[in-house]
Amino acid sequence: MPTSIISTVPASLITLTTDFGLRDHYAGVVKGVIAGIAPAARIIDICHQIPPYDVAEAAFTIAQAYHWFPQGSIHVVLVDPGVGSARRPIAAEAGGHLFVAPDNGVLSQVFERSAPAVFAIDVERIALKPASRTFHGRDIFAPLAARLANGFPAVDTGDAIADYIRLDPTRPIEESPGRWKGLVLHVDQFGNLVTSLPVEILDKSANNFRLKVGSLEITRAAKSYAEAPPHKAFAIAGSSGYVEVSINQASAADLAGVGAGAPVRLSETALLPPRTP
Amino acid sequence: MPTSIISTVPASLITLTTDFGLRDHYAGVVKGVIAGIAPAARIIDICHQIPPYDVAEAAFTIAQAYHWFPQGSIHVVLVDPGVGSARRPIAAEAGGHLFVAPDNGVLSQVFERSAPAVFAIDVERIALKPASRTFHGRDIFAPLAARLANGFPAVDTGDAIADYIRLDPTRPIEESPGRWKGLVLHVDQFGNLVTSLPVEILDKSANNFRLKVGSLEITRAAKSYAEAPPHKAFAIAGSSGYVEVSINQASAADLAGVGAGAPVRLSETALLPPRTP
Amino acid sequence: MPTSIISTVPASLITLTTDFGLRDHYAGVVKGVIAGIAPAARIIDICHQIPPYDVAEAAFTIAQAYHWFPQGSIHVVLVDPGVGSARRPIAAEAGGHLFVAPDNGVLSQVFERSAPAVFAIDVERIALKPASRTFHGRDIFAPLAARLANGFPAVDTGDAIADYIRLDPTRPIEESPGRWKGLVLHVDQFGNLVTSLPVEILDKSANNFRLKVGSLEITRAAKSYAEAPPHKAFAIAGSSGYVEVSINQASAADLAGVGAGAPVRLSETALLPPRTP
Repeated sequence: MPTSIISTVPASLITLTTDFGLRDHYAGVVKGVIAGIAPAARIIDICHQIPPYDVAEAAFTIAQAYHWFPQGSIHVVLVDPGVGSARRPIAAEAGGHLFVAPDNGVLSQVFERSAPAVFAIDVERIALKPASRTFHGRDIFAPLAARLANGFPAVDTGDAIADYIRLDPTRPIEESPGRWKGLVLHVDQFGNLVTSLPVEILDKSANNFRLKVGSLEITRAAKSYAEAPPHKAFAIAGSSGYVEVSINQASAADLAGVGAGAPVRLSETALLPPRTP
Repeated sequence: MPTSIISTVPASLITLTTDFGLRDHYAGVVKGVIAGIAPAARIIDICHQIPPYDVAEAAFTIAQAYHWFPQGSIHVVLVDPGVGSARRPIAAEAGGHLFVAPDNGVLSQVFERSAPAVFAIDVERIALKPASRTFHGRDIFAPLAARLANGFPAVDTGDAIADYIRLDPTRPIEESPGRWKGLVLHVDQFGNLVTSLPVEILDKSANNFRLKVGSLEITRAAKSYAEAPPHKAFAIAGSSGYVEVSINQASAADLAGVGAGAPVRLSETALLPPRTP
Repeated sequence: MPTSIISTVPASLITLTTDFGLRDHYAGVVKGVIAGIAPAARIIDICHQIPPYDVAEAAFTIAQAYHWFPQGSIHVVLVDPGVGSARRPIAAEAGGHLFVAPDNGVLSQVFERSAPAVFAIDVERIALKPASRTFHGRDIFAPLAARLANGFPAVDTGDAIADYIRLDPTRPIEESPGRWKGLVLHVDQFGNLVTSLPVEILDKSANNFRLKVGSLEITRAAKSYAEAPPHKAFAIAGSSGYVEVSINQASAADLAGVGAGAPVRLSETALLPPRTP
């Protein structure tokens, strides 16, 4: 049975990752509830513009962000198409951080990075009541995060479980030696295509590669955006640890004509037989 | 004469609800001014994306949000098409919370929930000077909120007034027994239509009702978004305490073809004579 | 040689002005890094929606905002099309405030207001390592801002330099007596055109002027938005200290058909010979 590995202290840090958008009062209300229960907890927004109901995008975002926060931070992830259904709310500990979220796979990429202890939150026993059927962020997750910030142990939130939902792993597949198949994990604000290929593949190929994504075929890597010639797509070791496909000061996603979820193929060309004309 | 019912203490919480958007420096500047005068006050954004000049939307947003914050919070509402005109700035106490806003009805829905004490702010005496004619958020409302956070009593901000502006009440009208007329108060990020009908009407009708909004006619209620069949609009007891019209993972507003302000009619069908064919 | 004129103390205030947008985890990660190094530093967003790579817009935004924050605040400006190239990261002191930014002119309008001391950050010696080639906001600027917040002196960040990049000055030119040429510095959320003409020009002309911007020709000034007749563009002394071109509750930018960078001409008509028919 897992034991609580983190002892949170008052004045914890709570992050928010949601699909609430910024036009409504929803994110503000979640912060108000937290401030009422844990006045000393600090709240930092990671993102409120996850596309509505897009669990995979939220899974990417929190996995990219959480490990840059101090150990013991509490991460609340609220993308919850199943709110009010039988889906369980969960609390988790992974990599020295705490998480609260619906059990819909939204923590999958966090758990790929670091093995978790996961607890099915016993709502009856510890949540604010009565909970609405449509806004568990306000009624269940915010109060729970605030209590964790006040020192309530994650291990006491409910029974440890092992059958929590996991999305398909994002790890790329080596279909044959030197031929990798991955996917676009995310398109960022600048139109960079963040792929699921780890940057080590670029190093390993010694920059002899052919990468295909959408309508683009790329054989060139750059060390920085600025060194690349204008209007030409290139591969780059992204800050995320993944290969990204970029264009200097333009949108690679627009040029490729694809978005998150699109397949990406990379062949290490040094390993391939030469093409016959 | 009203007396100050709230004694604010240092380290108060200040919320912001504005139509400043997020592309400009306006919201940041308001926070800078507050931080300079009340360094210990905590600032939480409720919303900066109220549609420009939309007093009714702001009235809905602050009324939905304020009561989820701790008692004694100070709520600044800056949607102010009349800035620089004769419209008065006001401070108010309602429901154990403090408010500063222009006197244009933006606090109407707060005051519907809880009877206020309202004061006409004596700008000459207490505001920063000189005030611009175009940015009272920065020059009048932010400094005043900061002083309230520092313990300045609302009752000392100016004379108590009773003739503050009120928008038309949002309370629905029972046109005949079991026939209600209300309106769409708000369309949220998910396309849910938040109506002015209190959820008790749904309960009272024992789910025998016909609700019309835009091109939609609805006779079905759901307990959660997830239990509803796809692509079918339904009524639901919203987290706001109002009946909402929703579609599971799609936009009810798009399907209905209406937005905020549209009329909503609900008939309790158990009370109606059967339709003749 | 410049000496450090500001002694920062723990619990400093750090502001962020970036083109990261709000859909990605980038701004959240920057905050996480700061919170890890300087837990007591307060972080306030000025803007994350600077148009991608738009150094001139960022230069306007930070110059408008910084001086409304308390003295000793630390302003981080992250609009950095040259990230990963030879462009230097800089720290600066100006007007009692601290700044960290890429050396690409983004602090030009700040430095127009207040003569700076500028330091070329010695990345090897003081930055987190290893730095990525694509996200210096996370790897260099955030850690440095956090250390400044912890009391590290700006003067110790690197060598003082005088050859930092400056954009073209935004000061308007008096082409002949009473005939001014400026430009649109910014279009705000409300469609107001913020020009580079200081409000004193309006006063000096005693409101006898002709202002041309895009398809608009304006001869009328208003003291507030609300006093202006509907649908008519007018000039107004903006809260920024610049002449703005506005329409009461509508977008002047849409009507003029121009945006940031467009030329603006103002003639003091009292000085002009009368037009012959």
